[in-house]
Amino acid sequence: MTRKQLVEQIFKKKSFLCVGLDPDLEKIPEHLLDTEDPIFEFNKSIIDATKDYCVAYKPNLAFYECLGIDGWNSFQKTISYIPNDCFIIADAKRGDIGNTSLYYAKTFFETYPCNAITIAPYMGSDSIQPFLSYENKWTVVLAMTSNKGARDFQFLEVNNIPIYESVVSKCLEWGNEENTMFVVGATRSSDISKIRKLAPNHFFLVPGVGAQGGSLEEVVKYGMTNECGLLVNSSRGIIYADKSENFANGAKKEALKIQSQMAVYLKRF
Amino acid sequence: MTRKQLVEQIFKKKSFLCVGLDPDLEKIPEHLLDTEDPIFEFNKSIIDATKDYCVAYKPNLAFYECLGIDGWNSFQKTISYIPNDCFIIADAKRGDIGNTSLYYAKTFFETYPCNAITIAPYMGSDSIQPFLSYENKWTVVLAMTSNKGARDFQFLEVNNIPIYESVVSKCLEWGNEENTMFVVGATRSSDISKIRKLAPNHFFLVPGVGAQGGSLEEVVKYGMTNECGLLVNSSRGIIYADKSENFANGAKKEALKIQSQMAVYLKRF
Repeated sequence: MTRKQLVEQIFKKKSFLCVGLDPDLEKIPEHLLDTEDPIFEFNKSIIDATKDYCVAYKPNLAFYECLGIDGWNSFQKTISYIPNDCFIIADAKRGDIGNTSLYYAKTFFETYPCNAITIAPYMGSDSIQPFLSYENKWTVVLAMTSNKGARDFQFLEVNNIPIYESVVSKCLEWGNEENTMFVVGATRSSDISKIRKLAPNHFFLVPGVGAQGGSLEEVVKYGMTNECGLLVNSSRGIIYADKSENFANGAKKEALKIQSQMAVYLKRF
Repeated sequence: MTRKQLVEQIFKKKSFLCVGLDPDLEKIPEHLLDTEDPIFEFNKSIIDATKDYCVAYKPNLAFYECLGIDGWNSFQKTISYIPNDCFIIADAKRGDIGNTSLYYAKTFFETYPCNAITIAPYMGSDSIQPFLSYENKWTVVLAMTSNKGARDFQFLEVNNIPIYESVVSKCLEWGNEENTMFVVGATRSSDISKIRKLAPNHFFLVPGVGAQGGSLEEVVKYGMTNECGLLVNSSRGIIYADKSENFANGAKKEALKIQSQMAVYLKRF
């Protein structure tokens, strides 16, 4: 999916919501556990319920990998089931030396054809560039994450510049706004504006709204551009909004609630 | 495998060699491509040929993942085939927020029972601690890697201290020498001593000897302890030493050559 197509979807659906697909056998409704593929059945219902209110899905690979072959089958079926007008982000946080990153790119852009993959930047240029060589595919680089541990290294300052800013600056040299996004946590909204200054047109993937405590209003205030420039993710807040047999309806309500707020913010353009 | 058992293996086999299992369908001998599982057949022959000369194997997940289900089956069969007295490092470079890292730990310590996993530290404490909660399992944290891009972020200095040193210092607070190792690239051997000073007893996993240009002599000079403290990895240099039908013999010769050098270094204790 190109940037233009993504922006079109956002304004058409009046939404910049990304739904995180983190299916956990210990959390999904019990009645699904008797089905042949509980993970896929769960995702299928969530997708059916939320696809009109979101523009992207973000399956988190850890939840599939831990189930072995069964999990990878569920992942495969899930990305095939997601409608073509939705953007798919493989939340895999990969990154290795050049010749290895090439194979990770192949995994998530060819074997499992997603639109984007999340990448950990610690190993630098040659760990990121192989992903950027794919046309119309997206590399979503961890810049400032939403977790507690983000403080340990990302906020260390070199000449008053935090590491996360150095990551963004370097990535701006390697890629462009048509193939690179940044993960920018909602839990540190006042810092979002720093990254927005560095990368005025890049899309940010924003986790941490909802379960992790970030505020949509703040994210919009500091991060929105005239082409939106945001994909705001909610995982647990949507998919586990209701843990009964009516879970899909609970997810739908929660997605609609967030989308309605997003529609107001998008109206200004 | 405990630290004590690993050290015993090293002195018994007179080797601290780790063989990297990076099987690539474009590089393995052509006659294997007709077999049912070329990747496993290749690994099996490499393991048979090298197991007496190495103490560890390091399958690099990218090479398996990119083949989808087939690749994960080959990975599963490979780790089952590796003899029990060899240490298995899943070179997966995972790392995510706490509740997700827990599932990555489950993947490589339970679903696919390896002894160790490599971890990218960018997301900090809660991305690493879930791995450390497993008894007799090892977390191998990327500190100073052997690739070109390592310079981009790992060598940035905060108050004259490079980021890779901050990573090591923090990990020393979270784990100990019984559950934590560090990736320390052989291509920057003079910097190995800095990390050795910080972590006098921890094991280092050292990539970059061979294909990437690092020297075994230098690694030993700056990194060896009286319990060895080193696992030196060679991937391409061993597994693709000979690309003919005699590839296993080529791998054996190369592994034996390195092991013979290692035996000399270990004699001093």
